[in-house]
Amino acid sequence: MKEIGVGVIGTAFMGKAHSIAYVAAGTAFGDGLRPRLEMLCDISAERGEAKRIEMGFARSTTNYMDVVNDPKVELISVCVPNSVHKVISVAALKAGKHVWCEKPMATDLAEAEEMLTAARLSNCQTILGYNYVQNPLVQSARQLVEEGAIGKVIGFHGIYDIDNEADPDRPHSWRMSREASGSGANADVMCHLLSIAHLMTASEVTRLVGDYDTVHKQRSDPKIPGQTLAVDNDDVCTVLVHFACGIKGTLRVSRVAWGRKCGLRWEIHGSEGMIYFDQERLNEIKLYTRSDDPRQQGFKTILSGPYHPPYDAFLPNAGHSLGFIDVKTCELNKLLVAIESGEPAWPSFEDGIKIERVLDAIDRSAMSGQWLDV
Amino acid sequence: MKEIGVGVIGTAFMGKAHSIAYVAAGTAFGDGLRPRLEMLCDISAERGEAKRIEMGFARSTTNYMDVVNDPKVELISVCVPNSVHKVISVAALKAGKHVWCEKPMATDLAEAEEMLTAARLSNCQTILGYNYVQNPLVQSARQLVEEGAIGKVIGFHGIYDIDNEADPDRPHSWRMSREASGSGANADVMCHLLSIAHLMTASEVTRLVGDYDTVHKQRSDPKIPGQTLAVDNDDVCTVLVHFACGIKGTLRVSRVAWGRKCGLRWEIHGSEGMIYFDQERLNEIKLYTRSDDPRQQGFKTILSGPYHPPYDAFLPNAGHSLGFIDVKTCELNKLLVAIESGEPAWPSFEDGIKIERVLDAIDRSAMSGQWLDV
Amino acid sequence: MKEIGVGVIGTAFMGKAHSIAYVAAGTAFGDGLRPRLEMLCDISAERGEAKRIEMGFARSTTNYMDVVNDPKVELISVCVPNSVHKVISVAALKAGKHVWCEKPMATDLAEAEEMLTAARLSNCQTILGYNYVQNPLVQSARQLVEEGAIGKVIGFHGIYDIDNEADPDRPHSWRMSREASGSGANADVMCHLLSIAHLMTASEVTRLVGDYDTVHKQRSDPKIPGQTLAVDNDDVCTVLVHFACGIKGTLRVSRVAWGRKCGLRWEIHGSEGMIYFDQERLNEIKLYTRSDDPRQQGFKTILSGPYHPPYDAFLPNAGHSLGFIDVKTCELNKLLVAIESGEPAWPSFEDGIKIERVLDAIDRSAMSGQWLDV
Amino acid sequence: MKEIGVGVIGTAFMGKAHSIAYVAAGTAFGDGLRPRLEMLCDISAERGEAKRIEMGFARSTTNYMDVVNDPKVELISVCVPNSVHKVISVAALKAGKHVWCEKPMATDLAEAEEMLTAARLSNCQTILGYNYVQNPLVQSARQLVEEGAIGKVIGFHGIYDIDNEADPDRPHSWRMSREASGSGANADVMCHLLSIAHLMTASEVTRLVGDYDTVHKQRSDPKIPGQTLAVDNDDVCTVLVHFACGIKGTLRVSRVAWGRKCGLRWEIHGSEGMIYFDQERLNEIKLYTRSDDPRQQGFKTILSGPYHPPYDAFLPNAGHSLGFIDVKTCELNKLLVAIESGEPAWPSFEDGIKIERVLDAIDRSAMSGQWLDV
Repeated sequence: MKEIGVGVIGTAFMGKAHSIAYVAAGTAFGDGLRPRLEMLCDISAERGEAKRIEMGFARSTTNYMDVVNDPKVELISVCVPNSVHKVISVAALKAGKHVWCEKPMATDLAEAEEMLTAARLSNCQTILGYNYVQNPLVQSARQLVEEGAIGKVIGFHGIYDIDNEADPDRPHSWRMSREASGSGANADVMCHLLSIAHLMTASEVTRLVGDYDTVHKQRSDPKIPGQTLAVDNDDVCTVLVHFACGIKGTLRVSRVAWGRKCGLRWEIHGSEGMIYFDQERLNEIKLYTRSDDPRQQGFKTILSGPYHPPYDAFLPNAGHSLGFIDVKTCELNKLLVAIESGEPAWPSFEDGIKIERVLDAIDRSAMSGQWLDV
Repeated sequence: MKEIGVGVIGTAFMGKAHSIAYVAAGTAFGDGLRPRLEMLCDISAERGEAKRIEMGFARSTTNYMDVVNDPKVELISVCVPNSVHKVISVAALKAGKHVWCEKPMATDLAEAEEMLTAARLSNCQTILGYNYVQNPLVQSARQLVEEGAIGKVIGFHGIYDIDNEADPDRPHSWRMSREASGSGANADVMCHLLSIAHLMTASEVTRLVGDYDTVHKQRSDPKIPGQTLAVDNDDVCTVLVHFACGIKGTLRVSRVAWGRKCGLRWEIHGSEGMIYFDQERLNEIKLYTRSDDPRQQGFKTILSGPYHPPYDAFLPNAGHSLGFIDVKTCELNKLLVAIESGEPAWPSFEDGIKIERVLDAIDRSAMSGQWLDV
Repeated sequence: MKEIGVGVIGTAFMGKAHSIAYVAAGTAFGDGLRPRLEMLCDISAERGEAKRIEMGFARSTTNYMDVVNDPKVELISVCVPNSVHKVISVAALKAGKHVWCEKPMATDLAEAEEMLTAARLSNCQTILGYNYVQNPLVQSARQLVEEGAIGKVIGFHGIYDIDNEADPDRPHSWRMSREASGSGANADVMCHLLSIAHLMTASEVTRLVGDYDTVHKQRSDPKIPGQTLAVDNDDVCTVLVHFACGIKGTLRVSRVAWGRKCGLRWEIHGSEGMIYFDQERLNEIKLYTRSDDPRQQGFKTILSGPYHPPYDAFLPNAGHSLGFIDVKTCELNKLLVAIESGEPAWPSFEDGIKIERVLDAIDRSAMSGQWLDV
Repeated sequence: MKEIGVGVIGTAFMGKAHSIAYVAAGTAFGDGLRPRLEMLCDISAERGEAKRIEMGFARSTTNYMDVVNDPKVELISVCVPNSVHKVISVAALKAGKHVWCEKPMATDLAEAEEMLTAARLSNCQTILGYNYVQNPLVQSARQLVEEGAIGKVIGFHGIYDIDNEADPDRPHSWRMSREASGSGANADVMCHLLSIAHLMTASEVTRLVGDYDTVHKQRSDPKIPGQTLAVDNDDVCTVLVHFACGIKGTLRVSRVAWGRKCGLRWEIHGSEGMIYFDQERLNEIKLYTRSDDPRQQGFKTILSGPYHPPYDAFLPNAGHSLGFIDVKTCELNKLLVAIESGEPAWPSFEDGIKIERVLDAIDRSAMSGQWLDV
């Protein structure tokens, strides 16, 4: 058993999720690299030190370059706002550090391409935090599709609705500004849906027509009471898509959909069956295959279990449920295996760029009203 | 209590459903017109007579003009293939008969316009068999939306998947020929989705971009063993839509979606909540409204009950479930009330033409790859 | 096609449900006896005549003996309070009329035995209104069990919760008095559960221990403001049971279970699988059978369809949903077939008495705190 | 931040779950005691050392007394078969070590009483591994009940079905022998249900009548091909119960229920509402409370979120799902807080003994066929 020193940049939602995954991975997977919490980075020295103690890192810093340059750090988590993914990832890769970067890659395609270039020039492994694809049940679903359980794939449809910005009384933020953060729901939410679409079809979106809607066009100015500021990026993004493999589908996302907390739902249609999935019930998958007896035909509700590896790294009994953090730990394990084996994990920056190109094409299509090739 | 003589043209699925509704309506609703089964029409004299006896009509015929011209018939059900909706409906209206016509109106927009003209020139009432809109729970949902239960409407999304043609081994039929039946899933399935979209938004689709997919491109020739015939209309139809009221949405339908038997699912998004519905569970509606206590927020599963009129015409107790035929009876009752009151029912031919225009625009958009105004 | 004249005694929930079923049956089933609405009986002449017109009967009366003695009436529906089931049923049977009697048979076992004796002495057919057993999907489930789909039956568990009396502020009524109506939830609700238990196991309860709970012990007196009256029968009834076939199980019912509108849920456990059912989703059944591939094991959600006869008497397409009234029509059809064929329907008075004996034993056990043989 | 040295005895399902929880707790909760993996014990030296490396402990041993006596170990996890819970727990408590013991306490009541005595004589904290009560959503449900969200509690009903022994072809094991393991499903599965019943009612079972069923009476002898051995404890256990607080209820468990992987389902009935829960969907709770508008009444599906603490120790966003291991980590945190504060956690040995007494009374009642006081 070998250790690997890790650094985490960012201490919010994802910074913490990565940190728990790092400590859990060693005990859950055991037979590979064991992460060692070396350094934590936060722009606030005070918060960084408090979080360091809370989460159990050896050292903290306010300068991400301290993490990048630390000789004990071999793997770096990039858990900061999208606008600084590029600069940190590129620096880390140049310094020879493996990178676990949260999704999406960057705020525009040019930055993502730079990241890919840096990855290609390095000897390092990368993985992007598209966690929903790492669910053992989803991986098993992909396996079943590959084995032909639903026949030939004939369509893919996905929805990802959340209610983060559903309240019309939420004040304006940088997320609602095209200048500050690029597209809205498209960048933030659609990317997850594309990761699933690409995984499940083993293909990629190549042609599309997209549409944007800004539902809440004015938001209160958080600084000047009584004033409002315009929202100039998309609350809702909808797309008709064609895939390289010849199938077609639809994708839609919203950040203003009341009641949906993690409302990622997708269906893959086959010539002999169908699978559908709802992320809010991440331990269940629904499978329809043809039945000899019509009286017995119906969708099966399959509960995750040890026969959906690596569920068995956590639990030997079915139906006991994995959670988000467990899935994040599976994601990390993919990267650790890649680092040990030299074989890339999925989705690396090579795979992520394909998602970025689709996001970019959606944006251009929504702006121009044209069907476009990716 | 006054009686009204009725004639039914067509004896298959819908001919029978209309006939049961006619006899049930009198007893269930009671206080209005009571239908009397006068004449049944089938192109086969033998089958028509057998069905007449089975279903309890006074007379049968093979000539629809006998029904149209019968002095005892005041109301005519048009339950025949779409290609003959127009000729029968127009004849009936010209003869002064009220018309209950199955959906969609016709196989092309020109025919539908002729039907509307005939309706306008008559003193008769019409209703189209868009039965899913007549579900008391759906009508109640519309009422809740009107009262502001989910705030301002901000989006509508609908899916209607069925597996009627999912089996790749099903032979070719007239439904799969553009010449014989126009568009495929668009005409047959999408029209239902539009009826819900128009009801729930109290608006109509005015701009759109659509896409077709023919998944199973060749089907076995039912006449010549070993031969195949090309399918030249759509198995799947997907659309991005804008509504007159300013909101946007998505619509998608498939006739090749394994496992979906009546897979009509729709969501209406509001600024303060959401409603969603699945036709396979027609006695349930899901409603999310904001909660003062975040610990208690969630979608409610509302079971249909007597407080969702006219559920109470059938049952005084909640949770006992209406079925498809009951909803068809509600639909008929709308028409009977319209006939008595002189106030049009919804959706009459005036309302149906708006659906036809959207279907036509979807077809043109899918063929041309352009965003189009309806 | 032969007609059969029918009389309905009682015009409330069940009087109306029977009446709609009578008119629908002819058109839906067609090939058997066609009911003709002859006479309606209500203790109020005014209401009876109003209902007669509404529901389409030929004549009305306030005296049930008019119905019993009417030569045009061959079949009588007993849709009155339980306390008068016996007197009417016995009179009808003595007059040579077939009887469709609502559940339970009577308010005590002695009365039920009298009814059975009258049935045995007649040449008439009887059926009891245990409608949940007549659901085509439930009948199909029984068929599957018989065919061994779940192996050997090893257990049966049922629940029936409703919220009719859940509100503590509902005033006292005759239902809450042991003198006026015998046991409470046991008589009213448990009988349904037993009908399912007996159907699904093809056996009967032979030994049990039961318990009662009166949750709301005082109710406001509807006549004297500010006063309360004691509730002296059971709001909740729970039972451990053994069946003649050797299996064991549990049954529990409540009339004070908030949110349950028709909360009948049951499970049949087998050595190779399981079936469960929820009456609030009466068009769905869940079936688990062993799977060769553990990754694909799970409960199937089966939607009712034409392969679950006689669903096909109503609808040719799956997933379109039957309702309570349709199931009531299926129940009637069983009786009509019995009348024509001379072969008894299930559950006739012969079958119903077995349910009554169990109810009686539950009552005695709950009072004595003893395990008892039925 | 202080560290606490921990030892884990047993390396199977629960040994691993405890170990992951130990490492995760530090990072997730952060502000309390941070566990340090000191010593792992397995009866096989080889497996113990392998697991030590895999899971990251400092040392391993085959002798549990090494763990008990180790000066660096302050807290001991007892994750061994029930028959040795007592000897290890008592030794640990005598050595002044805090104890995290898996459920149930022991194989008979006398042993459990010894454990309680040892705990009382020590200055140590104890907690039992009744993990389903530690789910943040369940804890929040209890809080809602306490606040009166469903009015006065009027009933509790629980089911826990699993299919571990459902296959009739599974060979005989020690679990199926009354001598080797005491009662079957009662000891193994019912104890979980009681932990929920006691938590949710804030009361305890005081009177009951129970029943056993051994469904598969003979199992193949794992040692002698062609031979069978008798199963002499319960596959199924069913109970009618009364609680100290005056309410009544039912409990039933089965270890032979096909398709149920973790089928713990419970309902708490109130005078103004109801809550129900299904452990296979551990991130959802269903709540019914009365509604002013009957059209809007229904059960809410509440997804777990940061407002159900300590969900927020893991994730800041609702609907992202906790898993079994996270809940185990919550359980551990309760114990760590108890160790720091000196205030007992729930359920300590003091609380667990009440469960054991009920299990014992169920066993005696099932054997004697009598209602018994606990």
